[in-house]
Formats: sequence, structure tokens, C-alpha cells
Amino acid sequence: MKKDVYSKLKETDNAIIKRLKDWADKIVDRARREKNVQMDVPVRTFSNVYFDKEQGIIQMGDRVARREFLNVGHAKKFLQTSLVASTVKDLLAEGITTSLRDVYYRIKHTIPGTKENTVDEQKESDKALEDLETIMGFVREQMHVFSKGGKGRLAGPIQITEVVPDPDGGPPRVVETDGENVGMGGWAIPPIAEPERVSIEKVDADFVLVIEKDAIWTRFHEDRFWDKYNCIIVTGSGQPDRATRRIVHRLHYEFKLPVYVMTDADPWGWYIYSVYKQGSINLSYLSPTLATPDSRFMGLTISDYYDFEFTKGIKITLTDTDRKRLKEMRKYPWFKHKDWHDEFDLMEKEGFKMEIEAGSSKYFRFITKEYTPAKLEAKAFLP
Amino acid sequence: MKKDVYSKLKETDNAIIKRLKDWADKIVDRARREKNVQMDVPVRTFSNVYFDKEQGIIQMGDRVARREFLNVGHAKKFLQTSLVASTVKDLLAEGITTSLRDVYYRIKHTIPGTKENTVDEQKESDKALEDLETIMGFVREQMHVFSKGGKGRLAGPIQITEVVPDPDGGPPRVVETDGENVGMGGWAIPPIAEPERVSIEKVDADFVLVIEKDAIWTRFHEDRFWDKYNCIIVTGSGQPDRATRRIVHRLHYEFKLPVYVMTDADPWGWYIYSVYKQGSINLSYLSPTLATPDSRFMGLTISDYYDFEFTKGIKITLTDTDRKRLKEMRKYPWFKHKDWHDEFDLMEKEGFKMEIEAGSSKYFRFITKEYTPAKLEAKAFLP
Repeated sequence: MKKDVYSKLKETDNAIIKRLKDWADKIVDRARREKNVQMDVPVRTFSNVYFDKEQGIIQMGDRVARREFLNVGHAKKFLQTSLVASTVKDLLAEGITTSLRDVYYRIKHTIPGTKENTVDEQKESDKALEDLETIMGFVREQMHVFSKGGKGRLAGPIQITEVVPDPDGGPPRVVETDGENVGMGGWAIPPIAEPERVSIEKVDADFVLVIEKDAIWTRFHEDRFWDKYNCIIVTGSGQPDRATRRIVHRLHYEFKLPVYVMTDADPWGWYIYSVYKQGSINLSYLSPTLATPDSRFMGLTISDYYDFEFTKGIKITLTDTDRKRLKEMRKYPWFKHKDWHDEFDLMEKEGFKMEIEAGSSKYFRFITKEYTPAKLEAKAFLP
Repeated sequence: MKKDVYSKLKETDNAIIKRLKDWADKIVDRARREKNVQMDVPVRTFSNVYFDKEQGIIQMGDRVARREFLNVGHAKKFLQTSLVASTVKDLLAEGITTSLRDVYYRIKHTIPGTKENTVDEQKESDKALEDLETIMGFVREQMHVFSKGGKGRLAGPIQITEVVPDPDGGPPRVVETDGENVGMGGWAIPPIAEPERVSIEKVDADFVLVIEKDAIWTRFHEDRFWDKYNCIIVTGSGQPDRATRRIVHRLHYEFKLPVYVMTDADPWGWYIYSVYKQGSINLSYLSPTLATPDSRFMGLTISDYYDFEFTKGIKITLTDTDRKRLKEMRKYPWFKHKDWHDEFDLMEKEGFKMEIEAGSSKYFRFITKEYTPAKLEAKAFLP
């Protein structure tokens, strides 16, 4: 039976409206009673981020910053957060979603009687929205705001129902996708992939394979790897957006599927793995809904170069930036495992990195016919 | 009745194999008879590109360069083109597609007995493949090579059939998409959108609306603009890939649909319009299959700022790079029209550019509720 996604959306909308109202009432109430008004916002800098070993994710600490309206240093941020909150209220009332860029333009104006703008750059409205996320306890996607149009793709034995509300008040469109019956572009992961809009109805897979690069994902899709190995193949087309990470997270938690990640053997690729796995520093407060700490790293590793007998033509010399990035990554608690440090050592010592496409130096289907099956068979994953 | 796409694919494959063989035979034959071997490759530099006024597209001239195998300056390119040709033959024989990056790795190796590599950088194999396109008269997509995973999206009253061959020899997958029944991500335009793989079965639309930015496209999609205005909405997510341009081209030529393009009011956005319309300089030989010279520009223009009474907060100051780009664009024959030069003048004089998202400074649905309907109503397009 189809889950009632649309009611869930309405429920969440109402809960957000209620919380926004309560929060605003409290501010107005304080303003009436006292001379000053304040809001407490969790601190989102590195100093208030810690690695939660038990859960295996990057978490936000409990320090909060108090913003006072009658404080020259705070007033503008206070105003920005209020404006963003008011915009979210409008979005919910209208039943529409929009992008971060649009929110920026929506709230940008010159404050009457001054030459001061409410916001001058998008990062100010973005930050204000992040503040609101932590204050409200809802992610911005639930508050109807996305980043870009979405860039993730997916295929495999999965049934998905999307509910698309009609902003003009008509009945919502209900779109069903069979992940085994998608074209070469796959199912385009939408900009908002919350359970309130996207319901994963059924999954008949044994695991999730996350592939960094979309062109490589196309190789797996064309080869029907999802059919032969009974899995869901996902790509975030490089650094994944929140929606792609959300879908991977949901596949793991809603369907108990193991998640294996495949990236280039370079510091950038390995970092992308850690974003899927533990979350990112800036968005630490979102780790509980975006990270998948049980993910395992399938490859590529520098050891693979030797294990699979690659030829030296595929080596790419490490740059200074790469070496610097490696040094930083050594310090991350989530890369503390000996197996990872062995890989870091090897990369530094050998002085090269390699791309997934290197497999094509052997033959085009090496990655789907030999490499991945061997890794799955041997369960040769890094933590 | 469904068009028989799969037979068309087989036919094209066979035609390419035959032409490759004829071409290779000729080279071998020459090698046997003479001491030197040569191939003629059309010149693809700016000097051999011209604007075809009659057809309204950028075209390649008829100058060819002769490459001789026994010429130190030519031998390597000769080798590279031969290697790429051999790789294409393998791809066709295997019935698989692959990316440019994979082709690079496939042909990269050290020439036995030397320290010389066949290719050192991807742009060498890319160029060799472009050579092969001009020699063969088939585009690389027909020769089973794509660039990346595809980034275009589409929605609206359109029926599409994709045929996905099985590299392991089973029957092809046939995937049907109803463009009115796609999720918020839309139909993901696949990396190869040639008629041999993607058949546009039926279109019930009055026009095609091409939107530069994917986030804005999402606004149109959420508002079901395609339903209310009976159109196909397409985005290339910025600079469009070949597949997206191909789909727009095909919608125009196969279904006689007018094409309207919407970009930011800045030199970069306007250039993107011209890529959809006239083609690009580097890929001039592809204009006949990729360009849509009858396209019209809907906006944004700098005149819109005044016509729609925007507030000055949305102005973005022109940079030196913008001004330089404007100067270059003035010289392009395809921007010679007075209306365009008036816009260039206005932008230079006023010293600002603006983004489509600026509409949200009025209200979020301004672009779909007011701006686009007004433009369509008044037929206010630039050539």
C-alpha cells in the first residue's frame, strides 16, 4: 500500500508553521515586556563541532550564541534570521518551494531611511537559513528551500513515489518510478528528497553502491550492474548535494542496506566518501539525517594499483595541494583507522593518485566485470 | 506506433563500421603501395569557421589539413586518430558506450621501445575524436562516446522512448517516459540523445521553453507551466551539454516547435543563448545537428529592468571581464542585429547585469505568473 506522503507533508508544514509562530510570538512578547529582544542560536563554527565516536558522525555541540536586537553587532543578523523566517512562512502558505538564490533576492532590500541593505551577499541569507534550521529543528528542505536543481541519479530494484503539490490548489501529482525501468539518465533525484515528498515504497536490493562520478555510474547502468548484483546504484555527480546524501541515508536506515562507496583514489575523492559517511563540518547539525556512518569504502585505493596490476601510465603525480590535503585528512578523527593511515602513507610515499577511469586502460568494462565483483567477493572494504 | 529505434541503431553502427573499415583499408593500401601514408582532416580552427547567414548557423569551412605518417610533426596526431578509430571499432563491436575520459585512458600507453606516450592529456584524445567525427561524418555519440553523465532535464506533454542495448547480448531495454508524469527532477536527458537511442514519439506542445538555470526550471516545473501554457520546459543546467542541445534541436526540426530561450541578463547568459541558437565555434562542424537558428530570446534583457520596474537592489555591477566579453560579442556576426546592439549599449551604459532570480525580489512566482506570460503575450523576443 502506498504511504500517505501528502498527509505527512501537510503535517510537517503545520508543525513548522506552529513552531515559527511560537518562536515569533515569544520574540514579540519579550519585545513588549522588555526593552531588548534576543534569540539563541547554536554555534556552527569548528569549535562547536565534535566527532561522535559512538554514532560515528560529526555532531554539533551544545554551545549557543545569544543575539540581541539592541546590540549593534547583532542587530543585522537578528533582522536577517527574522526575514528568512518570514519568507519560510510565505513559502509554506503558498505551498511552493524555492532556491537559496531566490530567498536571497526575496529578502534583499534597502532598509527604509538608511543606505543599509538587509543582505548584500547570498551567503548572509544562507547562514540565516542555517540559523533557522538549528532554531526550528527542521531542515530547510522541510521548510521548502532547496539549493540547486538536483544532480544525483539512481537506478535499480526500487519503487519510488513522489508527491508534487499543486501551488494553485489542485490535487497533488503523484509520480511513481520503477528504478529498473528508467532511461540512461536514471531517476533524477529531486532537489528535495525528504520523506514528506519522496517515499521509497519498496526495495529489493542487497546493497547500495554509491559512485562518485556520473560517467562511471553510466557504465554500471549500461551494464545493468544493478540487475546482476541486485543493488541500487547512486551517483552524486562529484560532491553530492544534500538530496543525494539524504537518499543514501534513507536507503540505509529505512531498508537496512549496506552502503559501499566508490571514488577516485585521491584526497578529494576520499573526502567525498567521508561526506557520505560522516557528514561535513559546516553542516554538522545535519549529520543525523544526512550521514551514513556504516558506509564502507570500496575503492579506489593506492593498494589497488598493485593488487590489480595497473600499468604506470595511469599514475597521476600528487600535487602540493594534494599533499597538504592529505596532511589535514590524517588529523580527522573519522580517518583515524590504521587501514586509512596505511593508504595515506602509501599515497605519500608513492607520490601518485589515480582515477576510477584508469580501469579502462585494461578494458572498458574492467570496473564492472572484474574490479567491483572482486571487491564485493573479498569484502575488501576500508572502514 | 513505436518507431523502430533499435534497428536504426544497428543500421548506424553498421554504417560506421563499414566507413571505418573503408577508411582504414585505404590507409593500409596506401602504406603498401607508397612509402608514406596520409589522412586529410578538416581544419577546425577559427580561421576555418564562418557564419552561414542563410542557415543562420556557425559552419566549418572546407579547408583540410593533410597529415602524413612519415612527418615528425604529424606522426603523433596520425597515431592518435588511428588509436581512437580502433577504440571506436571496439566500442561498436562490444555494443557499449563510454566517456571521453575512458577513451583517453584506453588509448594511453607508452610506445614500445621509447619513452613517448601515445597521449599525455585528455585533450589530445578529445581532439583526435573530433578529427574522427569530421573524417567519418558521424558524431561521436553515434560512435558510442559521450562526455559526462548528462545534466539536462525536461518536462511537458511529450512521449519519449529510450532504447538501451544490453552489452551482454540480451534484448534491449525499452523505456517509455511520459513527460507529464515525471518527478520534480524531470526526465534526465541521457548522455546520448541521438535518434538511434532516443525516440521522440509524440509531442502535444505549442513551443519549447529553454531555461538556463536548473533552479529556475524547477520553479516552472513546480508551477506546471508546461500544462498551463502547453509547452516543453528544458534546462541544460548552465552551459548545455551536446545532448541537451540535440534534444532542443530535434524538438524544433522534428516537430516544428518554436524555441524560446531564457537566461540571465549578462554576457555569459546571452552567450549560452547563442550556443543553443547558432552553435559554438569549436564545434562548428556540429552546428547542423546541434544548433537551432530559429530560436528566439525571451529574456532577461536590461530593458526588462525598466519595463518590469525592478528595484535597484537587484542590480549587479558589471566587471571588467563582463565588459571585455561584451566587446567580443559585439563582433560576432550572429549578434549583429540592432536589437542586440541596443541591449549591449544599454548594459554598457547602465553598467549592470541581472539574474533571472531577481524576479523573486517581487514575489517568488513573478517569473511564471507575470514575466513569462507577458513576454509570450507580446511576443517580445530578441532575434
